[in-house]
Amino acid sequence: MDDDDREPSAAGATRQLRLTIEYDGTELGGWQRQPNAPTVQAHLERALATMLQHEVRVTGASRTDAGVHALGQVATFQTVRTIPVHGLRRGLNGLLPPAIAVTDVAEVPADFHPRFSASGKHYQYLVVNRADRSPRWARWAWHRPEALDHAAMAEAARGFIGRHDFAGFRATGCAARTTTRTLHRVEIGPRMGDPDVLAIDVEGDAFLRNMVRILVGTLLGVGEGRLAAAQIAEIIASRDRRRAGQTAPAHGLTLVAVRYDGRLRGPAPPPGV
Amino acid sequence: MDDDDREPSAAGATRQLRLTIEYDGTELGGWQRQPNAPTVQAHLERALATMLQHEVRVTGASRTDAGVHALGQVATFQTVRTIPVHGLRRGLNGLLPPAIAVTDVAEVPADFHPRFSASGKHYQYLVVNRADRSPRWARWAWHRPEALDHAAMAEAARGFIGRHDFAGFRATGCAARTTTRTLHRVEIGPRMGDPDVLAIDVEGDAFLRNMVRILVGTLLGVGEGRLAAAQIAEIIASRDRRRAGQTAPAHGLTLVAVRYDGRLRGPAPPPGV
Repeated sequence: MDDDDREPSAAGATRQLRLTIEYDGTELGGWQRQPNAPTVQAHLERALATMLQHEVRVTGASRTDAGVHALGQVATFQTVRTIPVHGLRRGLNGLLPPAIAVTDVAEVPADFHPRFSASGKHYQYLVVNRADRSPRWARWAWHRPEALDHAAMAEAARGFIGRHDFAGFRATGCAARTTTRTLHRVEIGPRMGDPDVLAIDVEGDAFLRNMVRILVGTLLGVGEGRLAAAQIAEIIASRDRRRAGQTAPAHGLTLVAVRYDGRLRGPAPPPGV
Repeated sequence: MDDDDREPSAAGATRQLRLTIEYDGTELGGWQRQPNAPTVQAHLERALATMLQHEVRVTGASRTDAGVHALGQVATFQTVRTIPVHGLRRGLNGLLPPAIAVTDVAEVPADFHPRFSASGKHYQYLVVNRADRSPRWARWAWHRPEALDHAAMAEAARGFIGRHDFAGFRATGCAARTTTRTLHRVEIGPRMGDPDVLAIDVEGDAFLRNMVRILVGTLLGVGEGRLAAAQIAEIIASRDRRRAGQTAPAHGLTLVAVRYDGRLRGPAPPPGV
């Protein structure tokens, strides 16, 4: 639009707003805008443009892949509109498809950046571990039918904690310049109330492309006896993608929350943090 | 088929087999066979006929409505085939759509009947209680945005426990001849690990059509302040459908397990039983 007289604005004062977003990634093409796929970023930008009557560019904390879910994705955008955050949240949820919901909108300082300001992220990977596939969990968990050695997986998980060069744990095409990352938490346990579902919680300062999914594939390799827990240190040290396990499928992965200055933005603090 | 020589059978000895079934009811037309809808019974009968090479009639423990889910539906059928139960389970899961899985197959005595032999059923109704709808729970829980008075709901729940005439808690068209049923458990609590999700667990000897969903609608009426917990006894005694609450939508309801002689057939014993 050339003129800006349809709605009062605070004399051109630009506001930065932060969205917290939940999505079922099953039928979405991931976070990032793409020519021919329905992505979370594209849906948000379209809904915001409809509400605000100007083009909007949304920046996300995590560029989740196609099929990956989120309970607490964080994103920001700029606007000169004075629309209240409450009305914006309600309006967006009316415009967005059922697979995407905005659970919080807040005004944040201009120097806040969803990715560069983040001090950490919490991902959770779910595994249905029983003989038969589960319709209840089909969208949210990877089905592994063989019995898993939980003790060996827990030992392997501890081997990932700390500051390591994760060059062997990234997808080909990952453009990150550095590959050293710090993991604060790699925990394995049954999902409370769902005895067949194993949850793998991973928290760290930042992640390489597919890092959590390769880590999970490696842990499952240990749980199923193809790798020994004691090998984890040497697999990491090798910096060789071929030494690590397979990339676990996208649909088991959920971005639970993003941490800023030690505080999580997400649905609720994860147990044990 | 006229002749029966393709596969060995135990000289016409009829076996009765019991299936335990999990399903995501979202895109299914309920349990019961229907002319123009994909139902669980029809999918099972088609898959069994393919495997056994004869027509099969499946009898279920609960005729769940369209949209209702199950973790532990129980059903039986007869066959003269000697196919092992393990192969049957695997074969069925290969033929059934992703929304339906058979989690157990066992041979049972000829006098076992999935409905008439049942001593009780456990249903769980999930409510997402927060301002915004939840993509994570969209298929499995009813979204209620207003704050709920949990203490009042718990008091109301206690009013349902015991032996009562539930004539006011059934759908028009329910053909049951008697309307007295016994509820052993009506419990309300947060779903472990999911702070925004409220679980309403209902166990009883048998249920009228839509009884759990009307009970849940009535409990929500109490939680949202339209009804008082102290009114429950008089609402039940009135035997008047108009005095009870609305019928909660199907998609929040899951048949968790069916009980036989005091033992549950289902994914796991529910907490507290």
